[in-house]
Amino acid sequence: MDPDRIDPDAGRGDDPRFVNRAHLIDAEGGIVARYDKIHLFDVALPGQTASRESDRYSPGSEAVLAPTPWGPMALTICYDLRFPHLYRQHAKAGARVMLIPSAFAMATGEAHWELLCRARAVENGCFVIAAAQEGRHDDGRKTWGRSLAVDPWGRTLADLGTGEKMVVLDLDLGLVEATCAAIPSLANERPYRFRDLTRAPEGSG
Amino acid sequence: MDPDRIDPDAGRGDDPRFVNRAHLIDAEGGIVARYDKIHLFDVALPGQTASRESDRYSPGSEAVLAPTPWGPMALTICYDLRFPHLYRQHAKAGARVMLIPSAFAMATGEAHWELLCRARAVENGCFVIAAAQEGRHDDGRKTWGRSLAVDPWGRTLADLGTGEKMVVLDLDLGLVEATCAAIPSLANERPYRFRDLTRAPEGSG
Repeated sequence: MDPDRIDPDAGRGDDPRFVNRAHLIDAEGGIVARYDKIHLFDVALPGQTASRESDRYSPGSEAVLAPTPWGPMALTICYDLRFPHLYRQHAKAGARVMLIPSAFAMATGEAHWELLCRARAVENGCFVIAAAQEGRHDDGRKTWGRSLAVDPWGRTLADLGTGEKMVVLDLDLGLVEATCAAIPSLANERPYRFRDLTRAPEGSG
Repeated sequence: MDPDRIDPDAGRGDDPRFVNRAHLIDAEGGIVARYDKIHLFDVALPGQTASRESDRYSPGSEAVLAPTPWGPMALTICYDLRFPHLYRQHAKAGARVMLIPSAFAMATGEAHWELLCRARAVENGCFVIAAAQEGRHDDGRKTWGRSLAVDPWGRTLADLGTGEKMVVLDLDLGLVEATCAAIPSLANERPYRFRDLTRAPEGSG
């Protein structure tokens, strides 16, 4: 790896906004990969001030799959979790672990956080490692926390709940191959046409 | 709708195999749409005889979104549930309800059935209606059952458990628009490049 070829400002141009960026750092402190969050949290949850992350943050334009001594790992962030095709593409490119550092809102965290983390693991036969900010932030927001580690069968290996915590886990990476051999849904993908009968012309034969 | 334009044998050619087919039938008994399962259950679950659905069944080649008086409904079947892009495409084409008649195996049913049904609802902001065969079949198989109805926020509206049951539900279809307005993840999709650093040439600058 030549870290110089990763230009942190590539493609930003004159955009004055921040980026929401994840770094993958190796044991020597070197930056192996950077990822700028593609999908920004522009939402309007009921009873809450609308969130317009894109007002202050510029979206990334590149999904990043990074090499590690334990196989390819996908770099994703928070709201990306709601975009299943991103994880599917990583899995098809060989990802064994999906990294999803996050700061989920309270309402969506309670309803969707564990569900979607586990679904991404199961449907792609990968591990999900999702560190999550918890508690009250300086700007008044509260976030859900519950850092998770999930195995390819969807079993929750760790749920750190609330508060500041850390866990060290041994991941049995052979489970990726074993799960994909048992349920080869990536290999079983097939091309198909999309037939939308709701848009069919009247009376067409 | 002109039902004659739906040819049940279109594209089958000389293939002697069955198809795994769902029908959508209107109140007058007319067939509104047919769907042949695209993704066949060719798996090898640990401790079980491998399933090769494709030995006896020919795969479908068309996703089908069907019109109903309550909006577009997606026709899908069982193992399709593990292919998230299929549901995403239906949602982007306007599906408000995903139909997933199923006969899940026991082990995958216990581990994945409710999880994946709820995830498809949440990530696409749609209802999921998933009738499921339960019990012991003539060929010795046992299937999981637990017919489900899930709303766009991921709440389980009905779980019929085991045994032969029926439920009549009123679906608040306005929840589809409300949920997609609150979390517009379909509208927030963005194009991106896929950067696979695990395949980068050595020493490239």
